[in-house]
Amino acid sequence: MSSEDRNTAPTAAILVIGNEILSGRTQDSSVAWIAGRLVEHGVRLREARVVPDIETEIVAAAQALSARYDYLFTTGGIGPTHDDITTDCIAKAFGVPVVVDPDAAQRLEDRYGPGNLSDARLRMARIPQGATLIENPVSAAPGFRIGNVFVMAGVPAVMRAMLDNILPTLRGGAKLLQRTVVCQVPESVLAEPLGAIQARHPDIDIGSYPWFRQGESGVSLVAQGTDARSLDTVAAEIAQMVRDLGGEPVAEA
Amino acid sequence: MSSEDRNTAPTAAILVIGNEILSGRTQDSSVAWIAGRLVEHGVRLREARVVPDIETEIVAAAQALSARYDYLFTTGGIGPTHDDITTDCIAKAFGVPVVVDPDAAQRLEDRYGPGNLSDARLRMARIPQGATLIENPVSAAPGFRIGNVFVMAGVPAVMRAMLDNILPTLRGGAKLLQRTVVCQVPESVLAEPLGAIQARHPDIDIGSYPWFRQGESGVSLVAQGTDARSLDTVAAEIAQMVRDLGGEPVAEA
Repeated sequence: MSSEDRNTAPTAAILVIGNEILSGRTQDSSVAWIAGRLVEHGVRLREARVVPDIETEIVAAAQALSARYDYLFTTGGIGPTHDDITTDCIAKAFGVPVVVDPDAAQRLEDRYGPGNLSDARLRMARIPQGATLIENPVSAAPGFRIGNVFVMAGVPAVMRAMLDNILPTLRGGAKLLQRTVVCQVPESVLAEPLGAIQARHPDIDIGSYPWFRQGESGVSLVAQGTDARSLDTVAAEIAQMVRDLGGEPVAEA
Repeated sequence: MSSEDRNTAPTAAILVIGNEILSGRTQDSSVAWIAGRLVEHGVRLREARVVPDIETEIVAAAQALSARYDYLFTTGGIGPTHDDITTDCIAKAFGVPVVVDPDAAQRLEDRYGPGNLSDARLRMARIPQGATLIENPVSAAPGFRIGNVFVMAGVPAVMRAMLDNILPTLRGGAKLLQRTVVCQVPESVLAEPLGAIQARHPDIDIGSYPWFRQGESGVSLVAQGTDARSLDTVAAEIAQMVRDLGGEPVAEA
């Protein structure tokens, strides 16, 4: 990426808290989802981590990632059960106590009915002192923001709804655009001329992603950058390179 | 998990090297796949990270993760194009030079035909000095092992084939077993009795995973541990708890 982009676009990391991902029981889908939304918003996702439901691991990762990037998004571990320890861990990471938020308690009572706020339900109204709530239109129990950390649910539908509420509050940078050219020229044949195109355009990131499907193989060549005209130039050069190598370039959206 | 398990089962991390994951263009599937295979083999996956194709990031993550866990598996960045920098980064992480491996060069020449080893193809025969090859039955270009780090391709079919060759060489621990009970009792209702079951069985990890699908909602309660009898006891207690709360427990494989 260009140094200009590196200086101006905000950066982000994702911290997925979940034994179920590390045991292979569940395929994570939140990284791909959040990544796609951040791209639209001009925020550069620089790292994603999955850690287990262990306090020291969550605290250390939250501190490291929130110190290093402009924004940190976490998913998972904010429900009512014993294995939901994210709120306490994030409070520890910021060195603040956990408090019951009256607004959050009200939202939960509105949902469960007056007098139905059991200890377990009230647990979902606990947030680190100084945090602000993130609305949860799906199941009432809110997420929260503290400093540059956004704490969201792990359930995809809830996480997505929370993210919709977060995105308008973020500082966005120049949107990262991309052009994709697909071809069936082997990577080892196009490597050299592709490298030459990359060398001529240091402000554009060119990635080469081979694929195999249904007995066929090919390569997706993806150019990313913030300037649409430069990207069009690079995409045209890539397409011409493919034709020069005897292939048929196909532009993909 | 029990302290006994923590002491005896080898631990592992996964490092996914790929801008395409962080840009949201590609949904990672390698973490879930490797996680599932490691569980079968008795290796505990403790962390997964996704980093971009930037040398300093890859070197730092490889050093941190290989120092901390018994095994580190990397995917991505070992092809012939300019953005394939994993080999050089892993060599840097270990402080050794990169060399052309004669066996790897031979395998590539066998595939591409005598005299057809272009510079780009020969690039895939480069490995850190002291590394050993990991066979690639799909597309010839090998992965490699150096120290406790296993460097694999990013293309899923190739990664999976490489992993099949790696697994028999790993030290395995007691296999992590699990029992799953699904029910439609709200999490906030079962939280307290479930916490009591967890407190009675510190050697078993009990996770609670709410889900919403096709207008229905429920919770998967997952118990993990290495002792089948203890797990059966815990699963029976969870099922009884669900019945006591007026729900219908369904055991899942």
